Amino acid sequence: MQDRINMNMGAGGEGMQKLLRDIIIEPLMDPRAEIGLGQMDDSGVIDGIVLTTDGHTVKPLFYPGGDIGRLSVCGTVNDVSAMGAEPVGLALGMIIEDGLEMDVLRKVIASISETCRGCGVPVITGDTKVVEKGAIDKLMITTTGIGRMSDALQSNNAKLAASTGRKQKWLQDCNLRPGDDIIITGTIGDHGISLMSFREGYNFQTTLESDNAPLNGLMKHALEAGGLVAAKDPTRGGVANALNEWASKSGVGIVVRESALPFNPQVLAASQLLGIDPLEVGNEGKMLIGVASDFTEEVLGAIRLTEYGGKAAVIATASDSVRRVVLETAVGGKRIIEAPAGDPVPRIC
Amino acid sequence: MQDRINMNMGAGGEGMQKLLRDIIIEPLMDPRAEIGLGQMDDSGVIDGIVLTTDGHTVKPLFYPGGDIGRLSVCGTVNDVSAMGAEPVGLALGMIIEDGLEMDVLRKVIASISETCRGCGVPVITGDTKVVEKGAIDKLMITTTGIGRMSDALQSNNAKLAASTGRKQKWLQDCNLRPGDDIIITGTIGDHGISLMSFREGYNFQTTLESDNAPLNGLMKHALEAGGLVAAKDPTRGGVANALNEWASKSGVGIVVRESALPFNPQVLAASQLLGIDPLEVGNEGKMLIGVASDFTEEVLGAIRLTEYGGKAAVIATASDSVRRVVLETAVGGKRIIEAPAGDPVPRIC
Repeated sequence: MQDRINMNMGAGGEGMQKLLRDIIIEPLMDPRAEIGLGQMDDSGVIDGIVLTTDGHTVKPLFYPGGDIGRLSVCGTVNDVSAMGAEPVGLALGMIIEDGLEMDVLRKVIASISETCRGCGVPVITGDTKVVEKGAIDKLMITTTGIGRMSDALQSNNAKLAASTGRKQKWLQDCNLRPGDDIIITGTIGDHGISLMSFREGYNFQTTLESDNAPLNGLMKHALEAGGLVAAKDPTRGGVANALNEWASKSGVGIVVRESALPFNPQVLAASQLLGIDPLEVGNEGKMLIGVASDFTEEVLGAIRLTEYGGKAAVIATASDSVRRVVLETAVGGKRIIEAPAGDPVPRIC
Repeated sequence: MQDRINMNMGAGGEGMQKLLRDIIIEPLMDPRAEIGLGQMDDSGVIDGIVLTTDGHTVKPLFYPGGDIGRLSVCGTVNDVSAMGAEPVGLALGMIIEDGLEMDVLRKVIASISETCRGCGVPVITGDTKVVEKGAIDKLMITTTGIGRMSDALQSNNAKLAASTGRKQKWLQDCNLRPGDDIIITGTIGDHGISLMSFREGYNFQTTLESDNAPLNGLMKHALEAGGLVAAKDPTRGGVANALNEWASKSGVGIVVRESALPFNPQVLAASQLLGIDPLEVGNEGKMLIGVASDFTEEVLGAIRLTEYGGKAAVIATASDSVRRVVLETAVGGKRIIEAPAGDPVPRIC
């Protein structure tokens, strides 16, 4: 049988990691990048410019709490922000299926416009292609963001160095050290579970909403508090995937405290019903933040004062006493949190 | 009947211009951009960073002279280069249909890798999504490029200012003035006609090839000669569309000399057979360059020495004695070159 791409390879889990590493990244790696494909970070960096891109194929285009337009802007703003950088501008690439209702496009553009204004990051260039019926499913958007070093990141790095002697330029996946705390900026699993529930037509669709949100403002305040070493928005593959990437790239274990995990009760109920682990489900308005422990309380306090950080919590600690991502359950047990093999909910972003 | 998107709107002609202006650009415009959506230039600029994006939906994925990988890199490198900027890095967004043969992906990536090495612009970040069968047609690639001010552009601008008193920062569509010459860097229509011929299965497919090429090196040499005011790669909508955009944005007429237009004879033959105007057909390895007339010969000479510029020719002059884009035919007649209403060859890029 011929070797073919399959759905699990696009899912943010181990299937994708392998596809990316062997087939795509290895042939394209180039030493000129300050942070390049090989690091598989949230963004690349070259010549001091932070660059990230994201293709959005969400289905349906509109869902409770968001739409493909808001998703596209937030996803890209958050990937730039996850480097500690300040997002400065966006490129908007749209591929539209012949026959799409003009009002659908108008609504998506209005949502992009509103989201851009809300987070202060403008679209400055774009490309639009229309393809024949059947060539794509309605509308796909690829957003690309650029960012730069910010005063907030420089101040964060200076405080970190003064307090711990640790030097860094960007927030990278490989920066975590044993003893660092890990904060999540809010409830886990809302985006994927709400989209899945909405599609399946369960009852809880009426109040459970996606968390689509731009987190550049939140990150600025967190950086000003100081001591951040890493940040990652847990989209495809969810918190489980993000923590496993951190553990692997930083060469540390991570101990997650189940009792500290913030969940919307509807997410827990829906997860149980659908047989899905909410830790493996994508979020679109949350950030995992690694912070040197001297700074944890101050950073947590700063995040909780922001619009999207009210339910932030310290959920885990990097450790050299374990070698994997380990969940300490509420009743005192332990289980390994694996990187998901595939995505439980396809086309959520 | 409900208002819907149609194929002509994605074609680089007037239908697209209207879609872009009214529905997409107007709601998204933002004054922070140094060059923004409103200018509809080849790239945007913010904070001194040049940014451009392009979605590629070419069919078939491989064709004589190129493939979707080479096309994606060249298209983006050329859009950055058309601003006079130096391209420094690329973001690669891929959407892949479930079931795509792994060897197809490998070949596309190998082509991207080779093209990047050839032009010295690396991919530094990317995103890959796999979608279910039928959601897209095999593979779509959105490439985004960043660029910056270069020594060559600064030197070009200084020479231009010293000789003519004209001041500029970037090469923009609105910079053309009456008396400026317009150079095309090689034969016209090769990409679109070769793709169309290949699809239709005509005989000339065997030797007519697409012109897919990265033009950053050519542009650097042209800028070093000095006096460039504008550049544009005539892709969708072809030379006819590009010249009409220039005329409209610069508020000048353009007189095109038919006898000076460089065509591959096979393109002329195929155009006649297919009933297509090759001036309306997309190119993927050509640049239109506007140059102050004092510099024309030197720029032309510099371009002809480059790998992709051997057949460069001065084809037109900006003028205030006409108000449109006017073709002076070989036999002394005149006809208006209109912006094409739609694209004669869909999915060529």
